[in-house]
Amino acid sequence: MSEPGPTPATPARIGLLGHGTVGSAFTSLISERSAALTAAAGRPVELAGTLTTTQGSFDEILAASDLIVELIGGIEPAREYTLRALNQGKPVITANKQLLAQHGDEIFAAARENKVQVRFEAAVAGVIPIIRTIQESFGTIRIDRVFGIVNGTTNFILSEMAATGASYTETLARAQELGYAEADPTEDVNGADAAAKMAILARLAFHTPVTLGQVEYEGIESIRADDLAYAKELGLSLKLLGVAERRPAAPPDAPDAADATAPEGISVRVFPCFLYGGHPLAPISGPFNAVMVEAPEITEVTMSGPGAGGTETAAAVLGDLTSVLAGSAPVSEPREQLPVVTDVSSSFYLHLEVADRPGVLAQIATLLGDEGISVKSVVQRGLSEDARLTMVVHETPEPRFKAALQRIAELDLMRSPPRSIRVIEEAFG
Amino acid sequence: MSEPGPTPATPARIGLLGHGTVGSAFTSLISERSAALTAAAGRPVELAGTLTTTQGSFDEILAASDLIVELIGGIEPAREYTLRALNQGKPVITANKQLLAQHGDEIFAAARENKVQVRFEAAVAGVIPIIRTIQESFGTIRIDRVFGIVNGTTNFILSEMAATGASYTETLARAQELGYAEADPTEDVNGADAAAKMAILARLAFHTPVTLGQVEYEGIESIRADDLAYAKELGLSLKLLGVAERRPAAPPDAPDAADATAPEGISVRVFPCFLYGGHPLAPISGPFNAVMVEAPEITEVTMSGPGAGGTETAAAVLGDLTSVLAGSAPVSEPREQLPVVTDVSSSFYLHLEVADRPGVLAQIATLLGDEGISVKSVVQRGLSEDARLTMVVHETPEPRFKAALQRIAELDLMRSPPRSIRVIEEAFG
Repeated sequence: MSEPGPTPATPARIGLLGHGTVGSAFTSLISERSAALTAAAGRPVELAGTLTTTQGSFDEILAASDLIVELIGGIEPAREYTLRALNQGKPVITANKQLLAQHGDEIFAAARENKVQVRFEAAVAGVIPIIRTIQESFGTIRIDRVFGIVNGTTNFILSEMAATGASYTETLARAQELGYAEADPTEDVNGADAAAKMAILARLAFHTPVTLGQVEYEGIESIRADDLAYAKELGLSLKLLGVAERRPAAPPDAPDAADATAPEGISVRVFPCFLYGGHPLAPISGPFNAVMVEAPEITEVTMSGPGAGGTETAAAVLGDLTSVLAGSAPVSEPREQLPVVTDVSSSFYLHLEVADRPGVLAQIATLLGDEGISVKSVVQRGLSEDARLTMVVHETPEPRFKAALQRIAELDLMRSPPRSIRVIEEAFG
Repeated sequence: MSEPGPTPATPARIGLLGHGTVGSAFTSLISERSAALTAAAGRPVELAGTLTTTQGSFDEILAASDLIVELIGGIEPAREYTLRALNQGKPVITANKQLLAQHGDEIFAAARENKVQVRFEAAVAGVIPIIRTIQESFGTIRIDRVFGIVNGTTNFILSEMAATGASYTETLARAQELGYAEADPTEDVNGADAAAKMAILARLAFHTPVTLGQVEYEGIESIRADDLAYAKELGLSLKLLGVAERRPAAPPDAPDAADATAPEGISVRVFPCFLYGGHPLAPISGPFNAVMVEAPEITEVTMSGPGAGGTETAAAVLGDLTSVLAGSAPVSEPREQLPVVTDVSSSFYLHLEVADRPGVLAQIATLLGDEGISVKSVVQRGLSEDARLTMVVHETPEPRFKAALQRIAELDLMRSPPRSIRVIEEAFG
């Protein structure tokens, strides 16, 4: 699949299995991003067929497709379909964490035997490219630990409990109302979903077979609101953490053995866990996911982003599709010729050393108002020779701000030239 | 390069250009990780030759190599060597941001014409896999903005100035002492280094030609310690930010035009900038880098890690080497058979509802001490029916902690069963 076919115009045909939230978002995406996909693949991309619970035949779709996108979920018939596609030499892209966590050995062996790609970025941590990173970027370094927040439902619930003081039961109901938890949330809240994802990450990070049955997991069902409240006083925030790490395979009576020659093992666990405020995962809240990778060669790398959502998961599938169709490290012909624009708007911090007399703030504020510049916050301080104003102004076209700055510089109340530094508000405007 | 050669034992031969900090770290890494590289590549990997300033011939090294790793830096002869290798159909891995920012059109065109890979993860943000992510994972979505902290020297200086109150000049000297700034720090502190990286990121994100000359940049040389001090009161922290974003290509007199049919342009800039505390980049301090990508399909994804360092940069080169040698999405034969270890150690939060009488804390503390468990922090609160202790204990083997918990549960001073939740300290133990 990595080279364009003999006739450049021959389309790449996708067989889509499943048409739920992610499947329909994926169908929309390949249509919206058709021009970009064609440029990356070097040929048009088309949907050869879609298998749903009520229509379509897998046999016909497989025969008509160059590659399969499996979004059915669950074990059967996803397992059978995936193996049949791989055995016919057709690449498979899947978002199916349970399939890979429980039958990874079989699926990966079929891919190797048939020298065909199986890609599954969407199976773990949504749109965060952790699979690709561990498999390729960090594929030959010695990873010591992979850990993080890999379930958005539980992270949303724990963030809400900490923010509102509400109970687990109340917060779960609210998460269900908002669409962050499913009608049957069991697999999310008991840790099983995170355990499947950690089994996949552990297999890739440590190059060793790991299955779901080997992952110890606990959920968040027994977390109490007052634990969160008391812990806040200790500077702690609660996360459901998945941790896969190397550990010495020492006997239980010498668990602290740091003997370099000790046989090596791994530990893969999921458990609710407090983090101190300084920890890189502490600020990850709501439905976001985040994963950290530690290795001597890289110190630590952290990646965060939305862990779920139909479009976000479909975007992860689209990234895999891009790789399958475009081949290795594509540097495709530029498909745009965009001009560089320099007249941008920014928010600014402004530092003014001013004369210490009445009416100075009013004079500056009036001038800014005349230029259509709105003040977000201001601090006035100091006396006589040390009097100054520091303020932040809302987003303004830069030429307009520079003009105002020039006018301010010319005021006789200024003791030195004004200083300014751009400010990014919480999110870009 | 993506398939093993005809004889599986034929080694993949690397020609290394440059043997400074990164080059020598890379030489060590490929030796240390030889077994992993062989497993990923399906054949042994060897160094065919190393070109230094005092020895080696490029012609001979090129003839003896299957691929080239270019770590010379600068424009010539790096440009000539890279083009010659690509024109001979040999993949090139490079860490050379200046070469790609100034001559990207030429280098990428040569790679396309010869259908050969050029990879350059190490050129931007060190070991953070941002190049691979933008090219492949996000290669066909519509990226709106890529921005972040892509220069570790300036981020170290700004973090230090904010923490210590020292001047720019003093802090630069300290950064030089610690090895975070070079003897001639000009390119780092004036923003030129970050500008080159942003030119590369903008080209990939927007699929449009961008060169260094089109990037507006400002540095940090004129930042004053008192701006940092005053801004802290406004809840702001200062970063040198690179921002590449889509902007309407509207005339300067209508910069706010939000007309969907307006012609589109891009803006690529580097400037010192304040961030509010809630911004995902605000906590990135010291020599770390971080990059955020925004697109409607992914919301936002943030990646952070060490931005420099010989071993870290060499690890990014090794990741590119792994991809070139292993081909697409490798799921190689498991190379380890590691046992799963369950006797781990953890730090714990402990919540005890206790009788409100003297000596309770002493009794609990003595019991924990007997079990070899050390208390990190404790809060005692409440009266009579509401009296309780909440504490965090240092890392302890879990069986020992569970034994202590059992003993505590049996004490007659307990009003309900003890509750415990794991705690991760600032860093894993």
